[in-house]
Amino acid sequence: MPIDLTYAPEVSSLIERTRAFTRGVVLPIEDRHGGDISAAGGDALRIELQTAAKQAGVFAPHAPLELGGHGLNMSDRAPVFEEAGYSLFGPTALNIAAPDEGNVHMLAHVANPEQKQQFLAPLAHGDVRSAFAMTEPAPGAGSDPAALATRALPTAGGWVINGKKWFITGADGAGFFIIMARTSGDAGLRGGATMFLTPADTPGLRVGRHIGTLDKSMIGGHCEVFFDDLFVPESAVLGEVDRGFEYAQVRLGPARMTHVMRWLGAARRAHDVAVTHVAQRQGFGSTLGDLGMIQKMVADNEIDIAATRALLVRACWELDQGQPASNSTAIAKTYGAEAIFRIVDRSVQMCGGLGVSEDLPLARLSREVRPFRVYDGPSEVHRWAIAKRVVGAAKRALREPAE
Amino acid sequence: MPIDLTYAPEVSSLIERTRAFTRGVVLPIEDRHGGDISAAGGDALRIELQTAAKQAGVFAPHAPLELGGHGLNMSDRAPVFEEAGYSLFGPTALNIAAPDEGNVHMLAHVANPEQKQQFLAPLAHGDVRSAFAMTEPAPGAGSDPAALATRALPTAGGWVINGKKWFITGADGAGFFIIMARTSGDAGLRGGATMFLTPADTPGLRVGRHIGTLDKSMIGGHCEVFFDDLFVPESAVLGEVDRGFEYAQVRLGPARMTHVMRWLGAARRAHDVAVTHVAQRQGFGSTLGDLGMIQKMVADNEIDIAATRALLVRACWELDQGQPASNSTAIAKTYGAEAIFRIVDRSVQMCGGLGVSEDLPLARLSREVRPFRVYDGPSEVHRWAIAKRVVGAAKRALREPAE
Amino acid sequence: MPIDLTYAPEVSSLIERTRAFTRGVVLPIEDRHGGDISAAGGDALRIELQTAAKQAGVFAPHAPLELGGHGLNMSDRAPVFEEAGYSLFGPTALNIAAPDEGNVHMLAHVANPEQKQQFLAPLAHGDVRSAFAMTEPAPGAGSDPAALATRALPTAGGWVINGKKWFITGADGAGFFIIMARTSGDAGLRGGATMFLTPADTPGLRVGRHIGTLDKSMIGGHCEVFFDDLFVPESAVLGEVDRGFEYAQVRLGPARMTHVMRWLGAARRAHDVAVTHVAQRQGFGSTLGDLGMIQKMVADNEIDIAATRALLVRACWELDQGQPASNSTAIAKTYGAEAIFRIVDRSVQMCGGLGVSEDLPLARLSREVRPFRVYDGPSEVHRWAIAKRVVGAAKRALREPAE
Amino acid sequence: MPIDLTYAPEVSSLIERTRAFTRGVVLPIEDRHGGDISAAGGDALRIELQTAAKQAGVFAPHAPLELGGHGLNMSDRAPVFEEAGYSLFGPTALNIAAPDEGNVHMLAHVANPEQKQQFLAPLAHGDVRSAFAMTEPAPGAGSDPAALATRALPTAGGWVINGKKWFITGADGAGFFIIMARTSGDAGLRGGATMFLTPADTPGLRVGRHIGTLDKSMIGGHCEVFFDDLFVPESAVLGEVDRGFEYAQVRLGPARMTHVMRWLGAARRAHDVAVTHVAQRQGFGSTLGDLGMIQKMVADNEIDIAATRALLVRACWELDQGQPASNSTAIAKTYGAEAIFRIVDRSVQMCGGLGVSEDLPLARLSREVRPFRVYDGPSEVHRWAIAKRVVGAAKRALREPAE
Repeated sequence: MPIDLTYAPEVSSLIERTRAFTRGVVLPIEDRHGGDISAAGGDALRIELQTAAKQAGVFAPHAPLELGGHGLNMSDRAPVFEEAGYSLFGPTALNIAAPDEGNVHMLAHVANPEQKQQFLAPLAHGDVRSAFAMTEPAPGAGSDPAALATRALPTAGGWVINGKKWFITGADGAGFFIIMARTSGDAGLRGGATMFLTPADTPGLRVGRHIGTLDKSMIGGHCEVFFDDLFVPESAVLGEVDRGFEYAQVRLGPARMTHVMRWLGAARRAHDVAVTHVAQRQGFGSTLGDLGMIQKMVADNEIDIAATRALLVRACWELDQGQPASNSTAIAKTYGAEAIFRIVDRSVQMCGGLGVSEDLPLARLSREVRPFRVYDGPSEVHRWAIAKRVVGAAKRALREPAE
Repeated sequence: MPIDLTYAPEVSSLIERTRAFTRGVVLPIEDRHGGDISAAGGDALRIELQTAAKQAGVFAPHAPLELGGHGLNMSDRAPVFEEAGYSLFGPTALNIAAPDEGNVHMLAHVANPEQKQQFLAPLAHGDVRSAFAMTEPAPGAGSDPAALATRALPTAGGWVINGKKWFITGADGAGFFIIMARTSGDAGLRGGATMFLTPADTPGLRVGRHIGTLDKSMIGGHCEVFFDDLFVPESAVLGEVDRGFEYAQVRLGPARMTHVMRWLGAARRAHDVAVTHVAQRQGFGSTLGDLGMIQKMVADNEIDIAATRALLVRACWELDQGQPASNSTAIAKTYGAEAIFRIVDRSVQMCGGLGVSEDLPLARLSREVRPFRVYDGPSEVHRWAIAKRVVGAAKRALREPAE
Repeated sequence: MPIDLTYAPEVSSLIERTRAFTRGVVLPIEDRHGGDISAAGGDALRIELQTAAKQAGVFAPHAPLELGGHGLNMSDRAPVFEEAGYSLFGPTALNIAAPDEGNVHMLAHVANPEQKQQFLAPLAHGDVRSAFAMTEPAPGAGSDPAALATRALPTAGGWVINGKKWFITGADGAGFFIIMARTSGDAGLRGGATMFLTPADTPGLRVGRHIGTLDKSMIGGHCEVFFDDLFVPESAVLGEVDRGFEYAQVRLGPARMTHVMRWLGAARRAHDVAVTHVAQRQGFGSTLGDLGMIQKMVADNEIDIAATRALLVRACWELDQGQPASNSTAIAKTYGAEAIFRIVDRSVQMCGGLGVSEDLPLARLSREVRPFRVYDGPSEVHRWAIAKRVVGAAKRALREPAE
Repeated sequence: MPIDLTYAPEVSSLIERTRAFTRGVVLPIEDRHGGDISAAGGDALRIELQTAAKQAGVFAPHAPLELGGHGLNMSDRAPVFEEAGYSLFGPTALNIAAPDEGNVHMLAHVANPEQKQQFLAPLAHGDVRSAFAMTEPAPGAGSDPAALATRALPTAGGWVINGKKWFITGADGAGFFIIMARTSGDAGLRGGATMFLTPADTPGLRVGRHIGTLDKSMIGGHCEVFFDDLFVPESAVLGEVDRGFEYAQVRLGPARMTHVMRWLGAARRAHDVAVTHVAQRQGFGSTLGDLGMIQKMVADNEIDIAATRALLVRACWELDQGQPASNSTAIAKTYGAEAIFRIVDRSVQMCGGLGVSEDLPLARLSREVRPFRVYDGPSEVHRWAIAKRVVGAAKRALREPAE
C-alpha cells in the first residue's frame, strides 16, 4: 500500500461539478454585487443559491449521508471546498460557510439524537443558520480561551447564562446558538467550560450591533451577542458539562482547515484574474507576463498555492486518521492564511491601478482575506503553540537520562 | 560646515502647530466619518477645514510666500507633511493633498505670470482644486509614459485635444486641468508631449465615472476624463511645446516624496494606535506588548519609520540642491510605500479582531495605504529604473579602457 | 481507496534503521572532522562508512533489488534520504550522495544491459564513484542548457569529444563519467545533445582543479574537466543519439527531489541543535526558548520543514505515477532550497555567538546549504520556468474561442 | 541653517584617498589570500599595510589630531570607514578595525592623562593592538550584560580579578586588555561593573584557544581569555569604579555604527562584483542584468545600501550632538546588519555557481558578514530594546491623566 494521492472517482466528479457550478452560477452573482453578501440579498440569496446547489448535486458535501450530504472526509473536502471558495458566495451556496460548516461537523460528533434532530438536521439541510458564541471582548476570551468570562450557573432544571460575546459570525439571522460558558473555575483557568444549544429566540439572548470588518461576504455579519439571565434547560447541554474546551478542539482543528480550503479558492481566483491580465497587457516593450519581476510574482503564487494544498493534504489525512493533528493543523492554518494573503496581494500588484480598483475583484478579495491571519487564531498564537510543543519536548529530553 | 539635521526654529514651530492642529481639529472629524472624505462632506468639509488651518497658521506650507504659503523647501516639508498626514483628512486641510500640492509645485516652477495669476494663485489659496490628467487606460500611458495616446493637434489659434484619461485624482469638482497630450511622435516613443492648462468647464472636456478604489480619502475621487475635440488656445501651453515629459519629471520626483511624507503620517498613526492597544491589553499571562512576537512587530515598525524618514531626508536634500534625484526619490518611494504598507499591516495584526474591524481606524488605514505601492509608479517600475541605471553604468565601465 | 500517507512497514523499518545508523555511526565522524569529507578521509572514509551501512542493512535504498538495493520508489525515498541527510556524511555512507544517486537512477532507466553491467552494477555496489559532466563555464551550458558547447563529432567506430566542463561534482576520483555533448545543432539551440559513458582513465579526459566552494561535504569536490580529442566507441552512447536533453530531464526531476530530501535532513539537524540550545540557555530572566522572538524562529522552522516535506510528498507521488512532474519538482526544489537555507540561518541566529562558531555544527551547515539555492537550477530559473507555463497557458486560453 | 548633507572638502578628499588606497593597495592583497588575515600574515601584514596607509595620508581617521589621527566626528567617519571596509583588510590598514577603533574612541573619552599616554597613544599609532574583554560564556554575560560573572575584589593597592571571557576579538597578540568585571552586586543585576586597563603580559591573564568562526578577517581571532587571580593596581581603573556599564554604552553606540560602516563597504564590494558579472554574462537570450528577476535583486541591493547609509547619517548626527542615541543606533545596527547580509546574499545568487565558489570573493564575503547579525548584540536583543522603550512610553502615557 504505497502513498496514494488519487481522489476516488465520485470525489473527482464532485470536484468537477462544484467547479462548474461555482463558476457558472455563483461567481456572476458575486461579481454583480461586488462581493457584499448582505447587499446581494442576504438570506434570500442564500436560499436561492442553495436550491440551485441542490439541483446541481453539490449541496452539503460535508454533511452525513443520512442528512442528505455527501459524507466527505476531511481529505476529500479539501479540493471540493477550494472549488466552492473560488467565489466568495460559493461556500454559502453549498452550505459549507463558516460557522455552519464547523457546527455541522461538531454536532455530528458530539450531539445526542434529540439534538441532532432538533438542531443538526435543519442546519445540514440549509433550513436554518447557526452561530458559535465563544469569542468575547477584552478582557474575556479572545485569542486566549482561558480568559472565558461568560458564566453559566446551575439552577432548577437547567442553567442561567450571563455574559457578552463579540465577533459572533452569522449571529444576525441565526436560528440557534452554540454558547460556550464557564461552568467551573475562574477566568484565566483553562478547565470548566460547557457548550449549550439554544434557539435564537430564547428570552435573554440578544444580538447587538454588527461589527464592521474588512470582510463583507459572511452572511449574518460579525455581531455582538448578549446573554442576560438566559435560561436553558438541562437538555441544552452539548455533550457533557465541563468538557467544552475539549469539544472546541474537535471543532477548531477541522474548522481551521476548511477555512484554509475556502480562502485558498478565493486566492486562486485572484491569481487567475491577475495571470489573465498580465498575459495580455502590453508595456515596456513586452507582454507584462513575460517580464521577470512579474514572472517572479506568478511563480511565487504558484508555490504558495502548492504548499498550502500540500499542507492541507497532510493535516486532513491526520484528522481522518482520528489524530488530534494539533501541530499539522496549526502549521497549515498559519502558512495558509499568510500564503493566501500574499497570493492576493501579489495579484493586486500585478494588475496595478486596476488591481486596487473595483473594476476587478482583486481589491475586494484583498479585503476579504486579510482577516484570516487573525480569525481562527492569529498567526502569533499558532506559532506560540507550535514552538511550545517543540521547546517543551526538548526540555523534557534534556531532563531525561540518555538510554 | 558639518552635516546638520536640525530644523530651523520657525520650521520646528510649524511642525508643532501642524501636529496640534491635525490631532486636535482634523482627526476627530476623520474618525467620525470613517475616513471617507466624500461621505464626510467633500468640498464643503474641505473649505471648513482649510479655513480652520488658515486660522491656525498652518495652511499651505509648500506654497510660495507671495501666495500666502510658508515657502518650505522639500527638506522642511517632510516633517510638516508627515504631521498633516497623521489624519487622512490633514493634507486636504492644509491644501497639500494630491494632486493639488504637486500642481502648485510644478506651476510655481514652470507657469508664466499670467498662468500663475489665473491658475496657481487660486489653487494655492484653496479657492479651487485641480487635476493632473496624464494616466490613460490600456493600451495608453499607464506605468509606461511612452505609451501616451491622447493627442493635441495644432489648429488656428491653439490646439485640439482628443483622448481618454483614467484614474485622474480629484477630477470631479476640479476647477482646472493640466492635460498631458502628445504633440509629436507616435505612441511608444518617449519624445513629444506637451502640457496644457484649461478650466474644467471648457467645452469638450468631460469627467466620467469615479473608479472605485481601496482608498476613500482623496477628494474628487479617481475619475475617467474624456477630451472630445477639446479646443485650447495657445496661451494654454504650460512652458514650451514638446517638453511635457520633462516637466512631468519636475513634478513627479517631489510629488513622490510628498506622498511618502503624508502616508508615513498615516502609518505612524496606525502604529500609535496599535502600540497603545498592546500596552494595555492583557493575554497569555502578560501585557501583549511585553510578548516577544508583539515586540518584534513594534520594533520592525520603528525601524521602517526611521528608515523611511532617513531616505526622505536624503532625497529631499538632493532635490533642494537642484539635483534631479531620480535615484534617491525612486528608492525613497519604493522603500517608503512598502514600509508604510508593512507598518499598517503589522498594526492591524497587533490588534487582532479589533484590528480588522471598524472599531479602530486600522482596517481603513490598511485599505488607504495599499494603493501607494501602485500609485506614482509601481514598485516594480521603480526597481526596473534603479537597476537599469546601475547595470547600464556597469556595462559602460566594461567597455571603457581602464585608465 | 482514499488518500493514504502511511508508509509500508518495511519502509518504516528502514527509516528507523537509517535514523539509528546515521545518528549513531555517521554523525560522530562528521562532527569529529568538522564536516569536511576530504579532510576526514575521502574515499577511504567512504568505503569504511559504506561497509558499515551494508552491515546495518541500510545501504543503497534507491538501487534496484537485483543490484543489492532496497528498490524504493521516490515517495519512500523521501523519509529515508532525509534521515540519511541528518549527517552531511550520511548520503555518502548509504551511497545516495550526488551525483551517484542520480546516475544510478538514470542508468537504471536508460542504460542497456551491457552498460548496466559495466557501469551501473559497480556504482550501485559502491565499488566506484561516477560523475555527470553537463555544466560548462560561460559562455557554455550553465543554468541555460541550450548553450551547450562541448561537441561530439562522429568518427570511425565512435565519436570524438572536445570541450570543457566546470563544477563537475565528484569528478576527482570518479570511476567513470557521463558526458553530455552536442551532436547536432548549434549552441543556443536546445536540440541535439547525446550522453556518453566513459571510464575516467580514457585518454583525452582530464580532471583539472577543484573549484573551492562554500560546501565541503561532497566527495571528489566540484572540478573542472577537459575533453581533448576524447575518443569513445559507439557503445558509449547512452540510450540514443540526440536524446540527451530528454534523458537529462529523466535524471534532473528526481535528482532535484533527492537533493531536497538530503539537505532537509541537514536542516533538521540544525533545527534540533538550536532547539536543544534554547531549551536550556537562560537569559533575560527566562529560558531563551520561552521568549517570543525565539519561539517565532522555532515555529517558522517547523513550518518550513513541514511545507518542504509536504511538497516532496506531492512531487514524488507524481514522479512515481510516471508523470514528468516538471512543475511540482520545480516548486518543491525552489521552496525546499530556500526553506532549508532559512531553517539553518534561523538556527544559527538562535544560538548567537555559538551559532557562528565551530563549537556547534551550525556555522558549517550554513555554509553547506547555501549553494543549494544555486545547484540544480537557481531559484530564479525555476521561477521563470514555472511562470512561463502558467502565463503561456493563459495566453493560449485568451486566443481560444470560449465554448 | 537648513539641513545639510555636504561633507567638508577635507573630508571629501579623505574619502577619495581612502577609496584609492583601499582599492589600489589593500584589495589585491586580500584577494591574493582569500580574505584570511592570519594566513595572509597577521600582524606582519598589519604593520606593512599601516605603514602604507600612513604614507597615503589615510591612517587613523578617527584618532584625535594630537595623536596623529584625522579627528573625524562620527558623521564624517561614515563614508571614510565605508571606503576602508570595501576590502576586508582595509580597516586593519587604517587602524580602524574592531576592537581597536572602539577602544580608541572610549579611551579618548574616559581615560586619564597617564592612561592615555600609556595605552591610547601607542594604540592610536598602531604600535600595539588591544582587546575589550566583556563577553562571557554561558551562564555569564552574553547578549544580556546583567549576567556579568567575572569579579574584581579590592585588595591592598588594587584589585584581584577572576573569571573567564569568551569571543574576545583580537585577544591573541593584543598589547593590552580592557577588562569588564563586576565590582558590586550579583550576577543578574545591572549595576556595579568596572573597567580595568592592563598589559597583556600581566601574570594571571591568559589567552586560550581561538574560537573558530565564519569570519576570518579579524586579526587576533576571537579567543577565550582567563583571569586567575589577576592583580591590577588602582591606576588600572578606567574612569570610576562601578561605572563600567555606563562607559560600555559610550563605547557600544559608536562601535555599532562603525561596524555598520565597515561592513557596508564589504557589502558594496559584493554588490559591485555581482553587478559587473550580470552586466556581461549572457543567458536566456539576454544579458543577465537585463532580466527582471536579476534587476529586482540589483535594485533591492541599491535600496538596502541607501537605507543603511541614511540610517547611519541619522544615528551619527545624534551621537555627534552628544545624545545617547540608543534608539537610532539600535535601529541602524539592526537594519544595517540584516541589510548587509541580504546584499551579499543576493550578490552570491546573482553569480550562480561562481557566486558560491572561491573564484569570486562573494562566498567569503557571505561568511564574513553573517556573524554581524549576532555580534554587537543580536537583532533580537536590539528589537527587544527598541520595543521596550516604545511600549514603556505608551504604558506611562496611559497612566497619566490627559491634560
